[in-house]
Amino acid sequence: MEKIKQLQQDFADFLAKTDFNGQPKELYEPIAYTILQSGKRLRPMLCLLANEMFGGDEQEALWPALALETFHNFTLIHDDIMDKAPMRRGMPTVYQKWNADIAILSGDAMLAKAFQFALKPKQGAELAQQLSKVAIEICEGQQMDLNFETLGNVTIPEYLEMIRLKTAVLLATALQMGATAAGADETDIHHLYNFGINLGMSFQLQDDILDLYSDVKVFGKRHGGDIADNKKTYLYLKALELASERDRKRLQQLFTLRIDHDEEEKIEEVQSIYDRLHVKEAVEAVMLEYDRKAFEDLDAVSLTEEKKKHLRTYAEMLSGRKK
Amino acid sequence: MEKIKQLQQDFADFLAKTDFNGQPKELYEPIAYTILQSGKRLRPMLCLLANEMFGGDEQEALWPALALETFHNFTLIHDDIMDKAPMRRGMPTVYQKWNADIAILSGDAMLAKAFQFALKPKQGAELAQQLSKVAIEICEGQQMDLNFETLGNVTIPEYLEMIRLKTAVLLATALQMGATAAGADETDIHHLYNFGINLGMSFQLQDDILDLYSDVKVFGKRHGGDIADNKKTYLYLKALELASERDRKRLQQLFTLRIDHDEEEKIEEVQSIYDRLHVKEAVEAVMLEYDRKAFEDLDAVSLTEEKKKHLRTYAEMLSGRKK
Repeated sequence: MEKIKQLQQDFADFLAKTDFNGQPKELYEPIAYTILQSGKRLRPMLCLLANEMFGGDEQEALWPALALETFHNFTLIHDDIMDKAPMRRGMPTVYQKWNADIAILSGDAMLAKAFQFALKPKQGAELAQQLSKVAIEICEGQQMDLNFETLGNVTIPEYLEMIRLKTAVLLATALQMGATAAGADETDIHHLYNFGINLGMSFQLQDDILDLYSDVKVFGKRHGGDIADNKKTYLYLKALELASERDRKRLQQLFTLRIDHDEEEKIEEVQSIYDRLHVKEAVEAVMLEYDRKAFEDLDAVSLTEEKKKHLRTYAEMLSGRKK
Repeated sequence: MEKIKQLQQDFADFLAKTDFNGQPKELYEPIAYTILQSGKRLRPMLCLLANEMFGGDEQEALWPALALETFHNFTLIHDDIMDKAPMRRGMPTVYQKWNADIAILSGDAMLAKAFQFALKPKQGAELAQQLSKVAIEICEGQQMDLNFETLGNVTIPEYLEMIRLKTAVLLATALQMGATAAGADETDIHHLYNFGINLGMSFQLQDDILDLYSDVKVFGKRHGGDIADNKKTYLYLKALELASERDRKRLQQLFTLRIDHDEEEKIEEVQSIYDRLHVKEAVEAVMLEYDRKAFEDLDAVSLTEEKKKHLRTYAEMLSGRKK
């Protein structure tokens, strides 16, 4: 845990040292506003831990870590325009606080900055190539997500492919970039990448569950927000699969209601159907299967257990095995 | 001229060979739709000509040329959202034909693709670094342009800085990337970059003039569109500088009229003030000064006249010295 805390602190210091100021201020203020908000720094941490595992130079790995965090925040700024999200992390989103034009442009500038950061280490060309690949995949995932809003029936494989592209590939790339900066060999990088994919899938399914079943009030997120927004998450798709004809029809009906409907009542009714069908348990089983596959790939990395321990501890915290 | 035509054809072939298809189609169709429209291919041409000048490998230079064209088209897609432009090159813009979300996302994917292309040659890291620098500058220029819309008074130096960032730096970078791919030395690249800056300034001022004083009907562009849109171009700012108190007030008044006003009448009145003040001639004088400075830097490049001749011919065509 000491190592994890130290890397978190190192990244926080590196980020604080980075100059996000510039002219015109309308372009740069939203960048600093977004990236300096407190966040989990999940992607930089995966990058730094993968790098540390292979004995890489932390000073080199801080650049791709910064690239990943900058890139991730660019996706948030643009996604919030498309999702018309008024709040994030308990603060007004950029397009809401400024306007959509500024949100588009400052997002674009962040994407360019992410490449600038990724190019700094001596493996810069390879790191930037990895970043451009994941950037395109994430655009594909976001477009699939947008398509799902208007699509009548989304299948479970389609949903899984969407979250793979929208969430999992970036966690996998974070590990890949950290290991690349450390000069790890291809087979190990490949295992680490797969570890990230399955960890990411599990992570997103957990997010879907927490949206409805979280005890704590998550700051800036509504309880059952996905249901209120008619989001076809894994919970919903699994429920459709498990439901009787009658429940299925009712669920489909509930998920066409507009926001002006009584939100609380709708969330309660959907949850009662989910509970009756044991949807939460079914999704948790899928999650555990992704976790199992993830750690199989971590096991396959050709390093001693001692070297893997920090990344393992961090990933176990993420996947909720330890608190 | 043969060489110029050959490079144009080579780029057209390279572009035609590039696969812009992918899934989901909502993301990829707008990309192919935009980049495969006929265009001047100005930036790829500057890149290829600079490369050819230094005896670089054309096959290597086609990658940064493609990166530049992809990048340029990304800026068009995002700018059209912000400018609410319904048409471009005589075709509906992406946000108009599809929607703003798709225009944001397919633009993002193009920016990522541009980096992927720039990274292909062996000097990939350097080329991508140059691309990321210019990408940030162009965001700054576009933000300045957006600011000018609501700003009461824009000064001529501010306007020049805006067009430097929004237009000139990309032409300069196109030359820089071509020369970099050819392994040219730093001093020569520096001269070529400055050549591009001044050429770009002249090019944009010419654009400002052509908007109002073009004889031919430019496809997809309205005569006097800048005046109708109250765009504070160099013509307008120069007119304010040269005008009597009375003309200045009238111009400022005319440039606050909304679109519902009689457009033709407004354009005519503004043009009659410009003509009385000889604004066109004043702007042409500034343009010529930029051209002069541009070619000074081309002269300073340490190559024989013979080697520079294709780029010189192309640039002279651009700056309107030959037809």
